[in-house]
Amino acid sequence: MTFEHPMWLPDRALSFLTGLPVHVAAGDEPLLDTVRREAERAGAVLVDDPIPAGGLTVVPADAAAGLGPEGFELSSAGERTTVSYGGAHGALYGWFQVLRDLARGVRHDAPARFEPAQRLRVLDHWDNIAVHPVMGQVERGYSGGSIFYADGALRDDLSRVERYARLLASIGINAVTVNNVNVGRREARLLSDDLGTVERLAAVFRPWGIRVHLSIDFAAPLNLGDLDTSDPLDGRVAQWWADATTRVCTRIPDFGGYLVKADSEGQPGPHAYGRDHADGANMLARALAPHGAVVRWRAFVYNHRQDWRDRSTDRARAAYDTFVPLDGRFDDNVVLQVKYGPLDFQTREPLSPVIPAMAQTNVALELQVTQEYTGQQRHAVYLAPQWSEILGFRPFGEDRPALAELVRGGIAAVANVGDDGFWTGHPLAQANLYGYGRLAWDPTLDPSALLDEWIALTFGDDAAVAAGIHAILDDSWRTYESYTAPLGVGFMVTPGSHYGPAVDGYEYSPWGTYHFADRDGIGVDRTVATGTGYAGQYPEPWASRFESVDTVPDEVLLFFHHVPYTHRLHSGRTVIQHIYDTHFAGAARAAGMAAEWDALRGRVDDDVWMPAAERFAEQVRSATEWRDQVNTYFWRTSGIADERGRTIY
Amino acid sequence: MTFEHPMWLPDRALSFLTGLPVHVAAGDEPLLDTVRREAERAGAVLVDDPIPAGGLTVVPADAAAGLGPEGFELSSAGERTTVSYGGAHGALYGWFQVLRDLARGVRHDAPARFEPAQRLRVLDHWDNIAVHPVMGQVERGYSGGSIFYADGALRDDLSRVERYARLLASIGINAVTVNNVNVGRREARLLSDDLGTVERLAAVFRPWGIRVHLSIDFAAPLNLGDLDTSDPLDGRVAQWWADATTRVCTRIPDFGGYLVKADSEGQPGPHAYGRDHADGANMLARALAPHGAVVRWRAFVYNHRQDWRDRSTDRARAAYDTFVPLDGRFDDNVVLQVKYGPLDFQTREPLSPVIPAMAQTNVALELQVTQEYTGQQRHAVYLAPQWSEILGFRPFGEDRPALAELVRGGIAAVANVGDDGFWTGHPLAQANLYGYGRLAWDPTLDPSALLDEWIALTFGDDAAVAAGIHAILDDSWRTYESYTAPLGVGFMVTPGSHYGPAVDGYEYSPWGTYHFADRDGIGVDRTVATGTGYAGQYPEPWASRFESVDTVPDEVLLFFHHVPYTHRLHSGRTVIQHIYDTHFAGAARAAGMAAEWDALRGRVDDDVWMPAAERFAEQVRSATEWRDQVNTYFWRTSGIADERGRTIY
Repeated sequence: MTFEHPMWLPDRALSFLTGLPVHVAAGDEPLLDTVRREAERAGAVLVDDPIPAGGLTVVPADAAAGLGPEGFELSSAGERTTVSYGGAHGALYGWFQVLRDLARGVRHDAPARFEPAQRLRVLDHWDNIAVHPVMGQVERGYSGGSIFYADGALRDDLSRVERYARLLASIGINAVTVNNVNVGRREARLLSDDLGTVERLAAVFRPWGIRVHLSIDFAAPLNLGDLDTSDPLDGRVAQWWADATTRVCTRIPDFGGYLVKADSEGQPGPHAYGRDHADGANMLARALAPHGAVVRWRAFVYNHRQDWRDRSTDRARAAYDTFVPLDGRFDDNVVLQVKYGPLDFQTREPLSPVIPAMAQTNVALELQVTQEYTGQQRHAVYLAPQWSEILGFRPFGEDRPALAELVRGGIAAVANVGDDGFWTGHPLAQANLYGYGRLAWDPTLDPSALLDEWIALTFGDDAAVAAGIHAILDDSWRTYESYTAPLGVGFMVTPGSHYGPAVDGYEYSPWGTYHFADRDGIGVDRTVATGTGYAGQYPEPWASRFESVDTVPDEVLLFFHHVPYTHRLHSGRTVIQHIYDTHFAGAARAAGMAAEWDALRGRVDDDVWMPAAERFAEQVRSATEWRDQVNTYFWRTSGIADERGRTIY
Repeated sequence: MTFEHPMWLPDRALSFLTGLPVHVAAGDEPLLDTVRREAERAGAVLVDDPIPAGGLTVVPADAAAGLGPEGFELSSAGERTTVSYGGAHGALYGWFQVLRDLARGVRHDAPARFEPAQRLRVLDHWDNIAVHPVMGQVERGYSGGSIFYADGALRDDLSRVERYARLLASIGINAVTVNNVNVGRREARLLSDDLGTVERLAAVFRPWGIRVHLSIDFAAPLNLGDLDTSDPLDGRVAQWWADATTRVCTRIPDFGGYLVKADSEGQPGPHAYGRDHADGANMLARALAPHGAVVRWRAFVYNHRQDWRDRSTDRARAAYDTFVPLDGRFDDNVVLQVKYGPLDFQTREPLSPVIPAMAQTNVALELQVTQEYTGQQRHAVYLAPQWSEILGFRPFGEDRPALAELVRGGIAAVANVGDDGFWTGHPLAQANLYGYGRLAWDPTLDPSALLDEWIALTFGDDAAVAAGIHAILDDSWRTYESYTAPLGVGFMVTPGSHYGPAVDGYEYSPWGTYHFADRDGIGVDRTVATGTGYAGQYPEPWASRFESVDTVPDEVLLFFHHVPYTHRLHSGRTVIQHIYDTHFAGAARAAGMAAEWDALRGRVDDDVWMPAAERFAEQVRSATEWRDQVNTYFWRTSGIADERGRTIY
């Protein structure tokens, strides 16, 4: 790999500090050394004493300010800007906030206080060491191979991982999981004889305030150890995990914890021994607690061998039915990690009802930065607006807390980075990584403003470029929704790859992902009155709102109700006409996005413009295919013509 | 591999010759030596002189008998049976005919004459040397790995290949292609630096009268040679092929020829240089002619990047449109190899119109023994009745020649053999290999009688076993048709794997394989009057019969016509009711087949019974899935209930 794009930290973004005096408080915390090295890198003049009148000063805050270890305050007075930090992490995050402010000409004449909303802000890499025959090296990865592993082992040269760590620190990420949640035999050995790999990665991430997490195989005592069981209530098993964890934490004192996908999609778990998820999670939690580490236990548990003929089983119900009865039983250092929707990272799903239902559990929200179902980094889809909607959703009603306030266990996301030159496949997909870090820190940030922030850092101050990229990305998630999945229906994708349309692709599958379209109508009846009862898993007012076809929001209508094609939406259109209209408009908008990118040729560096232009061409082709397949399918099935007489094949 | 099933040549089948005197005419033809070794293997007593009064005598026929080199006559007089052969090949085939007769108690008191209907009777192995990442080692192989190659090279131990050669000789096969028609880079080297592999295989097949063929890369002069072109009209290219072929035939004097898939599904061909298929085929034919070898040029050429929106392009037309204008232009040693149907080895297709249309071309018929679309050797499907129907089809009408008489270039088929213990995955799939060889020799043989012949040789003389297996297999192809593809519609299979149902799986694909089902009807209008005109590619009377919805045979109705679900078949049923009835009946019959196999437990060796029983369980599961997915799809789409009120989901 020769070319490597600097993402949002090009030399230009540092140039505002060049020549400025910078004072960093004395102290031997490694993270303060990191800040000093950053100052040197920017060409600033490090001044120990006396504190200079201008430039930047990084000093501890008064205890009275009550800042947490990652918090900081910024203030500008005359020529001097001051970062007052609660702990050394705060100094590092404050440093990068200053970079963002300088690049955009922002001053804080009134002191501004910054604290992360979540203590845990983690990226989960679904990277394999051994290349999986179907999933490849990075499961659901669209950016080439792993940045960690090559040729069946840790890379010799970890300099790129270090640059990655710096990029993540600059947006506030403080934890990284270094292997796939689907743990293969090779990867399971990261816990045993290949622990050295984790240790080396941890050493690279540590100067950037990032703790390393490990996905583990729940059956490791069986598969790696000498035991004939992995029953979590068996004392030998608990001891095995205690010993294994002590070995890990002795070599990696700041080890972050385990990530576990148990009893899900074929992975082993406590059910094999008649135990429940609390038994399993707590056993691991107790091994980790002495070391200040957590276990993240994924709530993504459902029957993936469902019979499509069986309409009473509803995959959407599964996480709630499995985990809510366990609320209150999880140890303090268990984090229950819940996907944002009840199915699986669809472009549009209602929010998972598990999150509001588990008041006594540390719940983490899981997002997907990698674009598995949202265009696979060949389509330009800026996801921060989706995440912002999710984080701002108020499950108990408009005057009650937003989801972001209910989540106490952290924010997690599946990473979108690989070893390609742009890190993220599509150059514009970098915006998603950026937006994720910033929203994980502060979920109230405006995604549109974050987009401008990212553009300014990455592309500089050409107003036409900024306006053009903003126009392309700002509404791109809704555009993608419009030419793919109508009204919350989901899973109309090619089986396996999840790229491109296949209206019936998952309709007769064992995966529990159906739309039940027939000649008269479409959608899944998840009401309490006549359906699977899923709507009843929500608190009020949403239980009632989702239950009634009169009050359910249009965008999730088909997730909750089976309706005739002639059903009239709140928008005034019929369902079938909505399908036609949105697919025509969405594909046209994709073409418009490509044209807008075309107009930036010459203004954006050719080595960025060209690969993105190729992806825009693919997005237009794919959006057209989506439009025509979806429209044709529903025209053939419903027999109802487009009111506007457009071509449907 | 420890276990290896003897197929239709168990020791029992030889035992009838044990102790009998056998006389083989003097002569140093290697094939006569093979007959002598066979006699020794059977425990017969070889007698040179004088010719014994009883037992078996193998002697040259009078020239006046006019037997071809592979022909022979059998006659029994008193205790003596005589094989009179036209050539040494005839001696070998006569020998195995005697084995078949003895096992079944058949005598020829009146002399019986045997001549193969086709000079070329070939099995094409789609074996790769390097394992293909998607297709595996054997493309469309359902019997494990290749019997030829392992670990990226020819196997060291070729003893199994020799046993395979003997089995093929015993059913009259006289040629084998040793590599996949889709020629990879590794396999292309069989023509150059890895020619030794072909030479070694030819040496194994030679004593069994089998000539080796090679699939070649049309672009080899570019890819292997020093040329910058593979233009067939470029003299350097012709010389390159002449030189390469001379090298091959010097080392393999009985080399059979090349098999070429050109300008098809991404393979290179003459079109890249503005040349046609006759230019390409003749160029290779002229390189081969001095060595008495042929080029088999596949007619499987179509646009595999079709737009599903385009209803005017019809893949079914492609081979005819491409090749019929070239009739008369092919050299004598060109064989145009045509798949039996215009699409691709579907369970039911009308016969390819290319075969009757090319009177001045040596056309070979291509069948598929490997069960790509017919259950992949997990379903018990005896295909000889299908092949018999194809071979007996009379394109010019009932009093005119059958297809088998129009074919002069030979009979080819894709092999179904791999390195598993039964050679063919499902133990009962051996019947297809057997039936193929026997029908290639004599297309007028009755497939039901061939089935009994195979059962007697393979399973011996337990009448209950014979009746049971006969009952299971005899109508199994029509059973498979009934629970899968209705009325000639085809391609309702899982994309890629081609196993299991997906009604819309290929409906929006670029492969040209559509059914156009909508809420009102289904089928492809291929009439001249209103459709693609494909029906007009047939001679009379079939052009008119297929053209009219009144005269088209029910079983290919949807191949030629788009009709409403309420269209009434000749059977008296509506299309929709036919779909329901056949799918219910077919799945029930699959369960019946499994029950019949179950009843043979204890009568069939457990090491054969058990693996077949596992496959019958899978067949029942799969047939049920086919039934329900197809019925549900058409019920949802048509809204027409089953007249008999059976469960449709």
